[in-house]
Amino acid sequence: MQIIHTVAELKTALGNASQTAFVPTMGNLHDGHIALVRQAKNTGGPVVASIFVNPLQFGLGEDFERYPRTLAADAEKLADAGCDLVFAPDVAEMYPEPQTFQVQPPLADVLCGAFRPGHFTGVCTVVLKLFGMVRPRQAMFGKKDYQQWYLIRAMVRQFNLPVEILGGETIRAVDGLALSSRNAYLSEQERKQAPGLYDELKRICAALAAGDEDFAGLEIAAINSLTKAGWRVDYISIRTQATLMPATPGDRHLVVLGAAWLGKTRLIDNREVSI
Amino acid sequence: MQIIHTVAELKTALGNASQTAFVPTMGNLHDGHIALVRQAKNTGGPVVASIFVNPLQFGLGEDFERYPRTLAADAEKLADAGCDLVFAPDVAEMYPEPQTFQVQPPLADVLCGAFRPGHFTGVCTVVLKLFGMVRPRQAMFGKKDYQQWYLIRAMVRQFNLPVEILGGETIRAVDGLALSSRNAYLSEQERKQAPGLYDELKRICAALAAGDEDFAGLEIAAINSLTKAGWRVDYISIRTQATLMPATPGDRHLVVLGAAWLGKTRLIDNREVSI
Repeated sequence: MQIIHTVAELKTALGNASQTAFVPTMGNLHDGHIALVRQAKNTGGPVVASIFVNPLQFGLGEDFERYPRTLAADAEKLADAGCDLVFAPDVAEMYPEPQTFQVQPPLADVLCGAFRPGHFTGVCTVVLKLFGMVRPRQAMFGKKDYQQWYLIRAMVRQFNLPVEILGGETIRAVDGLALSSRNAYLSEQERKQAPGLYDELKRICAALAAGDEDFAGLEIAAINSLTKAGWRVDYISIRTQATLMPATPGDRHLVVLGAAWLGKTRLIDNREVSI
Repeated sequence: MQIIHTVAELKTALGNASQTAFVPTMGNLHDGHIALVRQAKNTGGPVVASIFVNPLQFGLGEDFERYPRTLAADAEKLADAGCDLVFAPDVAEMYPEPQTFQVQPPLADVLCGAFRPGHFTGVCTVVLKLFGMVRPRQAMFGKKDYQQWYLIRAMVRQFNLPVEILGGETIRAVDGLALSSRNAYLSEQERKQAPGLYDELKRICAALAAGDEDFAGLEIAAINSLTKAGWRVDYISIRTQATLMPATPGDRHLVVLGAAWLGKTRLIDNREVSI
C-alpha cells in the first residue's frame, strides 16, 4: 500500500485510473471506516483512502487542534483492509492559497449546521477538492454523519459530479454506541452513559412505527430524558429522509437525528424508520 | 456533428472519452467563439461545444429573455469549424431541481460583479456543472470576459478540478469593437460609437506604457471622455493580471477593464499591458 502526501504524487500514482473507489476520512480510523474500505474493495477498482483533518470544517473553539491524529495505526488498518493507496496531505498541500472559492450548500444552518456555522461549507468544499484530485468512480460516506451524507449526495446530483456516492451503515459497539473518533474523548463514566442517545432515538422510532405522529412531543420527551440524565442536547429532530426537512403527518420514510454533549464531548447519531 | 439536448444522451455519446476539448457558450456565436472551437480542435481530442443561456447568471431586469437564441445558425458554424458534438440543454434539463448548491467565488462584488449581483456565482456554478457533465481535459474561455476568465482559472485551481483552462484572445471588428453577442442590440448610430470604449482602454495602456502611474487620474479621464460622448460608464479600472486587484505603482503586468452602456446595451472590454 502506497502512502502519498502530495497532490502531484497522487496524480502520478493514479494515472488514468477511472475505476477508483474512494473513502475520504479524517483518520483515527475505527471499524466504521474499515467497513467503508471493505465496501470500496468490493467494487473491484483500486481503493484510495484519504486522511485529512480539514480545518475548514471546524469552527472557532471546536476540536481541530486536539482531534486525534494516528497516521501509523490508520495505515496499518487500511493495509489490512486491502486499501491500495493512502492520500494524507498536510494543510498547506490541501490549501496552498487561501480557499476563497467555497461551496455554499443548502440546509447549512439546520441540525448540526445550526450549531456549527460554516461546517458543511467546509465539508462540501474539501470533498469537492478531493473528488477533483482522486477522480473516483465511487465514493463512500458513513451514514452516521447523516446530514453530511445527505448533502454530499445532493451536491453530487446538483453539480453533476461524475461520481457515485455509496452510504455505509453505522457500526455500533455492543451497547449500541455509534463508533466515532470522538468517543475517545469520553471519560469512563461518560462512555457508560453514551449509548443513552441512541436509546432515545430507538424509543422515538418505536413510537413512530406504532403510529405516533406527535413529532414535537416525541422530540421534547427525548430531550427532557437526556437532559435529566446529564446530557446537554443540541437537537433531537424527526425529519424526512428525502428532504431532511421536519417531518409532517403522513410522511413515510423518516430519520430521527440527535446531537448532544456529554461533558466536553459532542456526540451525534441517527436512525432511519419507515412507517 | 451530433446535437444533443439531454445529460443522459451526452453521457452515452461521450462514453469514456478523456481527451475532450470543451467550449462552453451561450450561443449566438460569432468569430470569437469560432476561434475557441478551432483552438479546441488543435488539441487533437474530440471537441464539444455547449449552448446554454444560463438563467442563474442573469440578474432581475437583465436581458435573459431577449438574449439572442440562434441554434440552427450556431450549429452550422460549429459544424464548419470542426466541432464534433453540440450540447444544447434547456433550463429544465440543466436545473431539474432548484439549484440550492452554489459556488461562492471571490471577487464576486467587484468590477462587473458590483453591477451584476450573483452573476459570477451563476457563471461558476453552471461551469462546474458543465465540467461534471462533459469531463473535458481542456476548456476554452474568451479573454474578452476577463473577470470570468480569471475566476474560472482560479476556481479550477482552488477546487482542483481535473481540467486545463485555455484563454482565447479577443476577436475584434476592423474598427476595434470586441465581438460580442450583445453588439446585436446596438442601433446603427450606437454601433458607430461603440469602438470608443476600446479606444479609451488603448489610450490608458499607452499612458501606462509611457510610465504614467496616476491610475486614478487615467481612469477618471477615460470615464469623463466616455460620458461626454454619451456613454453611461459602470467602471474603468486598472488592475493587476495576477490578482485582479487595483494596480499600485510598481506593478508590472496590468489589465485595464471597462464596462459601459450605450443606450440599453452594456458593453465590456479589456486590454492587457505589461510595463
